[in-house]
Amino acid sequence: MRILFLSAIALLALSTGAAANDQAEFKLQQSQIDTAQALIDTALQSPLAFDIVESLTTEVGPRLGGSEAEKRARDWAEDLGDQLSFDKVSVEEFSMPYWVRGTMKIALTSPYEQELYGTALGGSGKSRGDLNAEVAYFRSLDDLKAVSDGELKGKIAFVDGDVLVKSQTGAGYALPNNRRRIGWQHAERGEAKALVIRSVGSDLHRFPHTGMMSKRTEGKAWASIPVIAISNPDADQLRRLHELGKPMSIALKSTAAWKGNVNSGNVVLDLIGREKPEEIVLIGGHLDSWDLGTGAIDDGAGVAITAAAAELIAQLPQRPRRTIRVVMFGAEEVGLLGARAYAEKHADALKNHVVATESDFGADTIWQFVSNVNEAANPAIDAIAKLLVPLGIVQGGKDVPGGGPDIIPLAAKGVPTVRLNQNGMDYFDLHHTPDDTLDKIDPEKLKQNVAAYAVFAYLAAELDVEFRTPSKEEE
Amino acid sequence: MRILFLSAIALLALSTGAAANDQAEFKLQQSQIDTAQALIDTALQSPLAFDIVESLTTEVGPRLGGSEAEKRARDWAEDLGDQLSFDKVSVEEFSMPYWVRGTMKIALTSPYEQELYGTALGGSGKSRGDLNAEVAYFRSLDDLKAVSDGELKGKIAFVDGDVLVKSQTGAGYALPNNRRRIGWQHAERGEAKALVIRSVGSDLHRFPHTGMMSKRTEGKAWASIPVIAISNPDADQLRRLHELGKPMSIALKSTAAWKGNVNSGNVVLDLIGREKPEEIVLIGGHLDSWDLGTGAIDDGAGVAITAAAAELIAQLPQRPRRTIRVVMFGAEEVGLLGARAYAEKHADALKNHVVATESDFGADTIWQFVSNVNEAANPAIDAIAKLLVPLGIVQGGKDVPGGGPDIIPLAAKGVPTVRLNQNGMDYFDLHHTPDDTLDKIDPEKLKQNVAAYAVFAYLAAELDVEFRTPSKEEE
Repeated sequence: MRILFLSAIALLALSTGAAANDQAEFKLQQSQIDTAQALIDTALQSPLAFDIVESLTTEVGPRLGGSEAEKRARDWAEDLGDQLSFDKVSVEEFSMPYWVRGTMKIALTSPYEQELYGTALGGSGKSRGDLNAEVAYFRSLDDLKAVSDGELKGKIAFVDGDVLVKSQTGAGYALPNNRRRIGWQHAERGEAKALVIRSVGSDLHRFPHTGMMSKRTEGKAWASIPVIAISNPDADQLRRLHELGKPMSIALKSTAAWKGNVNSGNVVLDLIGREKPEEIVLIGGHLDSWDLGTGAIDDGAGVAITAAAAELIAQLPQRPRRTIRVVMFGAEEVGLLGARAYAEKHADALKNHVVATESDFGADTIWQFVSNVNEAANPAIDAIAKLLVPLGIVQGGKDVPGGGPDIIPLAAKGVPTVRLNQNGMDYFDLHHTPDDTLDKIDPEKLKQNVAAYAVFAYLAAELDVEFRTPSKEEE
Repeated sequence: MRILFLSAIALLALSTGAAANDQAEFKLQQSQIDTAQALIDTALQSPLAFDIVESLTTEVGPRLGGSEAEKRARDWAEDLGDQLSFDKVSVEEFSMPYWVRGTMKIALTSPYEQELYGTALGGSGKSRGDLNAEVAYFRSLDDLKAVSDGELKGKIAFVDGDVLVKSQTGAGYALPNNRRRIGWQHAERGEAKALVIRSVGSDLHRFPHTGMMSKRTEGKAWASIPVIAISNPDADQLRRLHELGKPMSIALKSTAAWKGNVNSGNVVLDLIGREKPEEIVLIGGHLDSWDLGTGAIDDGAGVAITAAAAELIAQLPQRPRRTIRVVMFGAEEVGLLGARAYAEKHADALKNHVVATESDFGADTIWQFVSNVNEAANPAIDAIAKLLVPLGIVQGGKDVPGGGPDIIPLAAKGVPTVRLNQNGMDYFDLHHTPDDTLDKIDPEKLKQNVAAYAVFAYLAAELDVEFRTPSKEEE
């Protein structure tokens, strides 16, 4: 591990008097405003987050949920927690089913030989025998859904689609992602030998985008056929050949398989609150990554941003009132397994989780702050939002549920959420590809992220504000 | 093949009177200026070049020199020549040694397991046995050159370097490319088990850049060890691990091999000159590509630009005075083998090759026109250059040798050359990678290229100008 510590974080030593908050017209104390500003000033100069993500991606590398590499990532995180100023570091292990990609080759064999750039989707089955079959082309998932049972016997289904449309919010992702999530269920119903899909990605590079498929809710849970995503340029080639009326065949070989149960784990790093240690402001990211890249933007960045933000707060003269907890979730990519394990393990304490948020949308600049908290706390949210404006962050909706993928199980149990939305314009260029590597992170943008997380976490922990909706606490 | 023909090329029907050129102050006839302008107008609206490169990359795909796919490319080119308006189409076969990439896997095995994105360099040997060895890190080729004989015994040498600096001219390429060309000779001298190099490329994507190595001039001509290029992000990772003082090991498996002699060929497409059919203005590109991508920018674009330019000239009311010859060279990537075969086969006719140029630097906009012709012909060159200015092309040196890789053997025999230099800023992002696919070509930029080639080829063939240097004809 190679973390460069700031020689001294020159934060103002501030007196933090008793709260005098009127929720109707929320007013921050000057000392709180000054502290927030000092956090921003420090964050914008600190290389700490980049050093953390550089260390994780270099010294641990790819770290698939459940793998030995993910175990090394937990060791790395514990070590990091000890080097930084956290008061308590815990590893909370849990058991999970383990899927491995194995090796994969896919090639067009007719009208001519051409290697395709593809990868198995999470949960894919392996190929059996020498798989080389005619392609049944589908322009969209809807077209595949329309096949009759058994109609694809002996064939490989290819579901095309379009290059994902880029946007700041990533709004174009969810719908096309259904071909990744449930395409296999229709291919199996049609009795196809395999399913190949156009990657769900916005780039025109020769990288496939992996990602987990959705389990069936009844019957055999996972695919028994190989399910492969190919790159956008490869899918373009298949589309052009199809449009020329050329019959196509594809050969593929995949050793993807489930390997029984293994351990994963969440790493929990606490800055214990000085007045209400049991009340928790939860921030975090996920420690696991897909195995193709080194998980820099997904989600080494999130781990680094939130750990660095907490470290800056730890350098203040005193801890905030509430506990700030950084959770580095395990096994997010393979089904939010760490998030579910956390919610289960901490079920009784969730009523004390006052607000939660996760950084898991890359490493680009944060542009928007949204929230979903107790209505009475919205004036405090507005006050926090105002402090984020100099970072170029606008306030969005105050009724926007979410908080990040790993926050879903917490939000379902009534934990209030906010989200510091990153610019997602280029996120799906890299998402789940081999190209998710350290060089894709702009250290300057990472600093802005740290500043925003530090300000939010500090104020959420320092202010005497009830973010929970009373009715939700009853659940 | 799917070529969209223009329904009618509305070129002016121009009378082309006898030349009245004074080389001291060269003046184009108004009809020549008008024809050049009409060629530009038509080229800037014609989708023909894009249609050609789409057809080649889609219907033939990757086409390694000597492969069955390259043979299909020759068939495709003959077919194209027949569909277009060429007067004569010839395939000129030649024999060549055939190297194939085979399959390759490379992974870091210590300090942890991580797949590396690599590919064999052209001429690489195969791996023997289970190759898993400690890495000897070299910051540069110069450092590798300094090893003593036998010093690398039992190790895999890794030659780092830097991400290639981008420039319009590609000036940053030649020097670092030496690690690709001759690195293996020093690794073998050191008795390394294999050589791994940082790809010679300007991109930060997870693509290796292949390319041919240089033969030894004495002793065993080609490498007996595997020589692998890895992507820039992978090389960055190795460098960081090295800087952290972590000993590294790499495992690799490659089946690259020489496969004896096979046939390649050049496809020669002529628009026969109306007055001096034996005098040849040669333009062209190369038909083969590396096998990783589909050879869109390297060099489907060059083939398409020059064939489309000739086709526009063929639509004029009459042929220019001299023959315009489009040569689609075979086996360029693997050592200019088609170019050498052409120069040999046409040795006696080279004195009638009045000027030659090749498009083989991508598909970006042409920014500069340089030349290296008989000094007395420079006023005519200036006049041509003037007509290219509206296309955004500036005139560069009149003593710049070159003309393109496949023109080297012709230039060596005294054939005058010009070059329409494309903007190479992004060329080495894609060069020799799997990412060289059709989507990387901007159809609008291709039109500008066609316009420039059409103007140059038309005027070089139409004007009664001696581009050859009398002394050079004596050679």
